[in-house]
Amino acid sequence: MKIHSYAANSAKAELEPFTYDAGELKPDDIIIDITHCGICYSDVAFIDDHFGGTPFPLVAGHEVVGTVRAMGVNVDHLSIGQRVGVGPQCGSCLNCEYCAGGKEILCGEKQITIGGGNRGGFADAMKVDGNFAFPIPEKLESANAAPLLCAGLTTYSPLALHCKPGMRIGVIGIGGLGHLAIQFANKMGMEVTALSTSNSKEEEARALGAHHFVNTNDASAMANAASSVDFILSTVYVELDWPSYMSLLRPDGRFCIVGASMNTINMPAALLTLSQHHISGGAAGGRADMLKMLKFAETHEIKAQTEVMPMSQISEAIDKVRNNKVRYRMVLEA
Amino acid sequence: MKIHSYAANSAKAELEPFTYDAGELKPDDIIIDITHCGICYSDVAFIDDHFGGTPFPLVAGHEVVGTVRAMGVNVDHLSIGQRVGVGPQCGSCLNCEYCAGGKEILCGEKQITIGGGNRGGFADAMKVDGNFAFPIPEKLESANAAPLLCAGLTTYSPLALHCKPGMRIGVIGIGGLGHLAIQFANKMGMEVTALSTSNSKEEEARALGAHHFVNTNDASAMANAASSVDFILSTVYVELDWPSYMSLLRPDGRFCIVGASMNTINMPAALLTLSQHHISGGAAGGRADMLKMLKFAETHEIKAQTEVMPMSQISEAIDKVRNNKVRYRMVLEA
Repeated sequence: MKIHSYAANSAKAELEPFTYDAGELKPDDIIIDITHCGICYSDVAFIDDHFGGTPFPLVAGHEVVGTVRAMGVNVDHLSIGQRVGVGPQCGSCLNCEYCAGGKEILCGEKQITIGGGNRGGFADAMKVDGNFAFPIPEKLESANAAPLLCAGLTTYSPLALHCKPGMRIGVIGIGGLGHLAIQFANKMGMEVTALSTSNSKEEEARALGAHHFVNTNDASAMANAASSVDFILSTVYVELDWPSYMSLLRPDGRFCIVGASMNTINMPAALLTLSQHHISGGAAGGRADMLKMLKFAETHEIKAQTEVMPMSQISEAIDKVRNNKVRYRMVLEA
Repeated sequence: MKIHSYAANSAKAELEPFTYDAGELKPDDIIIDITHCGICYSDVAFIDDHFGGTPFPLVAGHEVVGTVRAMGVNVDHLSIGQRVGVGPQCGSCLNCEYCAGGKEILCGEKQITIGGGNRGGFADAMKVDGNFAFPIPEKLESANAAPLLCAGLTTYSPLALHCKPGMRIGVIGIGGLGHLAIQFANKMGMEVTALSTSNSKEEEARALGAHHFVNTNDASAMANAASSVDFILSTVYVELDWPSYMSLLRPDGRFCIVGASMNTINMPAALLTLSQHHISGGAAGGRADMLKMLKFAETHEIKAQTEVMPMSQISEAIDKVRNNKVRYRMVLEA
């Protein structure tokens, strides 16, 4: 079958219509008719080839929601017409210790939805391993569910792994990821501090569930917040003043970096040893985390703040994401 | 009562006899007649004022073994004549969430045995809060127990916190800390790789319990060891080639730094995010860890390799530690 998509043909190019053949429907595969696809900043990073090596033409888009049109003979956990979502990962071996342990994202054979020549969700349809398509809970609206599939998973997963109710959590960056992280942390029973360079974010951060707000450019506010949080989730791409942020951690506290960070870590090791601090990378979550995150979002009414545009205006939508003009998450609608 | 000790009167000074008054025996205090005291490299670092701010005269020594001579009225868990040990910590509030949770080393009011004007174990006796004196299990020899009180605790504690039997563990540095870490990790059921810049350490590392040996200066050996361990314990003070060591970690692996490290952490954050890696500081352990470590050492016959010298030759002994001439741990005997 033919799939009608939008592809980048070279780095930073405007997306153009691109038709390709989906090829054989293997036993585990499904075909999804796409109704919605979020735009993540990492889509732009791949289109703009920030990391080098993007295989063009690239069909990006990895926050995909749609309905099942066809299923391979092995697929017995989904049904035709069912609403499903696909996130940043579209395959893994399913048999190594990581896959068997619910950490498919760490599998050595993992497949990334927009990596390695795979075709993503900026399209009318998509073929994908049904093991990486997840039923969307009934109460979630499709346009709202889409950003959860990457931004939601990326922020939910480290909070679920490292944190517990009652812990004090800082979130750096009140954007596409951060505005979800604040909601998740609040609803998980944590005390949330929003950390931002812009006072203009305070009101919204508090509305999202932040109990405290610290302007990280304000030295006296930072000094007052010293040793005040157990966990910091950094959702930003900019270089960080590491000693300054580490000073916010309580003993045994952890700094966690998520997203396709291009930062450099640079600080004295004594900042870790003296008070038993930790730094962790967050590599999104596995399939179990995806299912749990979607259920949690439904139960606790976690909502992405979205701007919805028709997929035909994809170039304009991409530009808005590229230029950080979206509060907070762009979603394309078929 | 008068205590006869050896003190440094200025940075890098040779130690000289120093008599001081122990002062009042408070309700929680005990007096220990010292029979043995290990020399840790951090004693030398304090004597040589590596960190700045050492209060002179300094009576160092924080791997103390001796017998209880006197006890304050509150002390009911020890008895006169009992053999006890004191490590790097000699006090804390005992009531904050860290103390109550067995993490006294993270207490904001923690007292360090050789810090803040406290007097350590290079002496014939010592007064200390009895809550930080630990019975030495019967089968441990005193000269052997002494190094366990700091070097043992510092290596046992992060292994107990982060690791489980079956995990693959790398130990950087086969010295005072590392030779204990290898033994602990092996006896805890882990698969141990010794990481050293010197092939001369291989035979001893294997005798101590290492299953594998990698010369970290050998690029091809390092390449062969890529993604081979779940946890690395770094016991060295030198600057590290971070990307090179991080390449040894399997997905979800952790690099842990212990000791009074003067290193700088410097690497791209992507080395953490892509495979969900972690970096942790290890701040020794609390009182529960000390008790568990001593019991574990007795049961599993963990032995420090020691060189024992009379305390009267303390200056010579200190010089040997300062110049890295001891394999692996120096202990002074009264």
